[in-house]
This record gives sequence, structure tokens and C-alpha cells, in this order.
Amino acid sequence: MAVITVAEAARWLKERDVFLILTHKRPDGDTLGCAAALCLALRKLGKTAWLLPNEEATSLFAPYLEGVLAPADFTPAHIVSVDIASEGLFPDRALPYKGKVELAIDHHPSNEGFAALNCVEADKAACGEILYTLITQWFPVTAEVALPLYVALSTDTGCFVYSNTSPNTHRVAAELMDTGIDAAWVNKRHFRTKSYTRLRVEARIMETLELRDEGQTALAAITLADMAEFRATEEDVEDIAAFVGQLEGVHTAVTIRELKPGECKLSVRTMADLDASKVCALLGGGGHAAASGCTVMGSVADAKTAIMAAIRMVRSEG
Amino acid sequence: MAVITVAEAARWLKERDVFLILTHKRPDGDTLGCAAALCLALRKLGKTAWLLPNEEATSLFAPYLEGVLAPADFTPAHIVSVDIASEGLFPDRALPYKGKVELAIDHHPSNEGFAALNCVEADKAACGEILYTLITQWFPVTAEVALPLYVALSTDTGCFVYSNTSPNTHRVAAELMDTGIDAAWVNKRHFRTKSYTRLRVEARIMETLELRDEGQTALAAITLADMAEFRATEEDVEDIAAFVGQLEGVHTAVTIRELKPGECKLSVRTMADLDASKVCALLGGGGHAAASGCTVMGSVADAKTAIMAAIRMVRSEG
Repeated sequence: MAVITVAEAARWLKERDVFLILTHKRPDGDTLGCAAALCLALRKLGKTAWLLPNEEATSLFAPYLEGVLAPADFTPAHIVSVDIASEGLFPDRALPYKGKVELAIDHHPSNEGFAALNCVEADKAACGEILYTLITQWFPVTAEVALPLYVALSTDTGCFVYSNTSPNTHRVAAELMDTGIDAAWVNKRHFRTKSYTRLRVEARIMETLELRDEGQTALAAITLADMAEFRATEEDVEDIAAFVGQLEGVHTAVTIRELKPGECKLSVRTMADLDASKVCALLGGGGHAAASGCTVMGSVADAKTAIMAAIRMVRSEG
Repeated sequence: MAVITVAEAARWLKERDVFLILTHKRPDGDTLGCAAALCLALRKLGKTAWLLPNEEATSLFAPYLEGVLAPADFTPAHIVSVDIASEGLFPDRALPYKGKVELAIDHHPSNEGFAALNCVEADKAACGEILYTLITQWFPVTAEVALPLYVALSTDTGCFVYSNTSPNTHRVAAELMDTGIDAAWVNKRHFRTKSYTRLRVEARIMETLELRDEGQTALAAITLADMAEFRATEEDVEDIAAFVGQLEGVHTAVTIRELKPGECKLSVRTMADLDASKVCALLGGGGHAAASGCTVMGSVADAKTAIMAAIRMVRSEG
């Protein structure tokens, strides 16, 4: 359970061979981009490296995973994980590797140090920033390696818009773009394209949105009937809470997903004037001060009543 | 009508005093941000500098304009313009300064060289990148100067998402953020906030959207009735063509605005498979290959018929 620096991690990798790289459950651009970049960089060093195929990787990331997914008969000598904070976040296929990860590279403050060697820089917006520093210990990044690293950086920062974006994020992005990668194509694909179904769901949310507390609290709902009507998948409603969160003048944005009859999942986003984790704790949930979640056993109407009561209770305490 | 370098422009400004800075018609974050940054930097050099108030500047930019708008009785010795490509883009209040601009700083490829001295770098995504280089000839940027420059860079690139974003854009953003500015606040304000009215308009577009050509052509319309129902202003529907343009699988996105009964303004966005300027030229309009516009004297239904006929005509020629 040792902690090592990026330079030490680079040396450790360079001295070994035959790697399997793990990504996390519900994989995003950071974990997949880091894994692909590390795999390609290790191969450039003349080594054998593969990614453990992640069954939950969506088609959005397919272009970055060509030629890097391990064949079924691959036997690795060393297991490395990228962007994984704990073994609880292993996808099913990675469960056999619990307790066997030798090197974990990560940027989550919540990293549990589950590997033999842990290289964690929690001040980085994306794990891709760490991988950039690591790979450049070996050689200047090539376009092939830079593309998945750009995907890692841009997707974890909403294309440099989230508050985690730092000067270092921009500096690494500049270095990656210097290699001639088509960043505009990545941006169009990940940030300037929405499915028809997603936009229909967003439109339905606006049609049925309820504003309370003189417009400061917004209650949005996506019912089972909505999901069925639009034939929406989980991918279509991913991070849908952010949609309501962008409403001007709204301080508290509640998004209710009816998961099955009598069960609703709530996502609560708040500004500094209200602690979302306290609100959700009252309903058995939790999370962060600005973004939390909870489950209400009841109808959408029940969920609205429950969350409004919880909001009022926390407000009256503050 | 001389062309000068950024270093020469910096020297020219340093040798003079008492400046009025002009911004362009329908001002955006780049022109206003550059003007505010230049004004504050000139003052830091001990000079008198003011912005000509721009009557079309929206409240979104008010925080960056505090204390820099010229009083009515100000008499300048030198007129400078930022981010203005031609005198045709002067706002009404700047019309008296036609033929009197001594130094124009701009990044538009279409710049007409209307000033006595023209400092134009057309490879820059934002004019703010040029101003950064110029101001750093005098001193390292301070947070006060960096904030409006960050607004300039981020707004002209859609927060580093548009294809004009270059490695230099990211490098300058990093330098600006190093001063400690609250970039997250700017990003939230400009890129993560939408008005309720805007979102209602977008929802209406999705409810009434027509897909043609097996989903490759999208026809969206905003009627006078819609605008009245939502009490929408021009600000609420600004750049609304981009909304339809993000639809996955759509190659040609047409957004129709009913301006008055019997008159519609059309905005056409296309991919490489169709030249939007040729389509719009058939209806008396024009623009760029990927984004053009035209006016149809008729109802929304007439506009749909006309644009579909024009699209088919250009397609059959190609």
C-alpha cells in the first residue's frame, strides 16, 4: 500500500512487461482515454499491453478503443488501474483482479489506496493530466497517444468548463493539440451532439417543470411513461440533473427519475445557500454539499412532497 | 492604412495618451472583454482610457464594464478599435469616428484595414489572444486585466469547444488563470446558465421539429405566436440555430424564424455534404459553406417548402 510519485510509476512500468489495464464501472472518457493512452505508450516502449474490455463502455468511446482490447486468452504479468478510486468501482469483469492491482494511477481525492503502489494526484481535474506527465517521462507524446488523453481531459472537465479545470489542464491540452490531433472532431462528438431522444426528454422536462419558492426551487420529473414514450435508454438520460441545474435563477434543482412504480430516484443540486447532502440525508441519501441523491419509495408526487419537506426542514435549521 | 505587428502596436500605445476604445455592433464577449482589458492595462501605464459605451451590450457583460465606460463629456486624443473588421460594424454611437480610428486590433480574416494602423492576426481564435500578447509587452497580466481577457477567449470559442480553438488559446487561458481569476464563475455565467424562456423555446422547437430525408434534414420553426406565448426577447433566441445543429444524425439543420406575418428568416447549417451558401443563394441569401442564411417572404409553411426545394436543387447538382 505504498504511495509513489509519477516519475516512480513511469520507472516501475518501464522496468516491467505484459500489462493488463483496468478501467472503472460505468466508464467515462477519463478512465477509457487514460487506459488507451497508457496502452499505446507502453507498446511504443516495445511492451505488450492490453485493456480489460469494459462491458459498459458505450459506442461513443469505440473509436479510441480500436486495437487495444485484450483478447480472451491474454495472460498478464502485471495489473494496472487508471482513474479507479476503490475496488468497489471495478466492473464485473475486473472482480477477479481484486487485491491484485500492482499500480493504481488516479486523481480522486477519495482514492482508497487499494493497490500495492498508488500514484494519486488529487489536484488534477482529469487522470489524463497525470498520464500526460507519466508518458512524457518516456518520450514526447505522439498524436496517437495525445488523442485519447485529450478525450480524458476534455470529458472530465465538460470541455474546460467545470470548476475543476486548472491552468495545468489548459497547458496539457495545448501540448496535446500541438501533436496535430483533431480536437474539434472530439469536441463535436462529445460536447456538440445530442440525440433526438435526449432532446425530447429535455423538452418534456421543460413542459412539466414546476417552479416553487418564487422560482428558486425547480422540480423536474422523468416518468416511466416518458421513458417508454421516447424509447429512452439510460444513455439518453445520463447526467440529466445537469440540465435542470443550468436554469437561470434556480438555486435548488431537483430531478426525479421514476425507476419503477412506487420507487423514485432523486438528484438534488444546490448553490451555497443550501447543503444538498443534509437535504438528502433526511431521506436516507447523501453525497456532496452541491450535489446529492436519495431514493423515495412512492410516486413522483410523493417524491415531490418529500423533497420539498426536506428542503424546508434544512432551510429552517440554517 | 499600414499593417503593424503586436509589438509595434504596444509601442505606439505606450508613446501616447487619452484613448477612446471602440467595440463592434451587437457586441460579444471578445470585443467587450478586449476593450475592458486594454482600457485597464492602459490605465495601469498611467494613461487616461475609456470605452465608448455600446448601447447594445447586454446585462450579461455588465460586470466587466464597471468603471470603464466613457462619460459623455470625454474628449479623446486617440481612437482605437478592438475586434472590429470593418466600419460597417460600428454601432450607431461610433459612427462619428468613421475614418478616425488610428489603431485597429483585430483577428477577423475579413478585416478591411480601415484604420491608419492595423494590427491583425487572423490565425487567432479570439482577439483576446492578441491583446494578451500586446499587454504582456508592458507587464505580466494582473487578475484585473486577465478576467475580461478570459471572457474574450472563452466566449469566442464556446469555452474552448469550437474548431477555432488552438494550442495558443489554451496556453493563454492557462496564463490568465494563473493570476487567480474566478474562471469557474465566468464559465457558469456564460456557458452553464440558460433562461427559463430560452429552454421553453428549445422545448417548443423539439415538439414541432420535422425530420425529412430519413432524418438527415431537420426543419425547426419559431413562430410569432411562440415568441409571444413565452414573452421571448431577441436575447432568448440568440444563436438558436446552434440548438438544432447539435442534433445527432442531422446533416442539414434549418431554423426558421417568423419575423412578421409573411416574412421568415432562415438559418441553414450543413455538414461537408452540402454547401449551405449555395442553398441560401437560391433564395437570395448567402454566407459560409457550413452556415448561411436567407429570407423568405411567406408563411412558415412557405419557408419550409422553399428551403426543401432549394436543398434538393443543390443536392441534385452536386
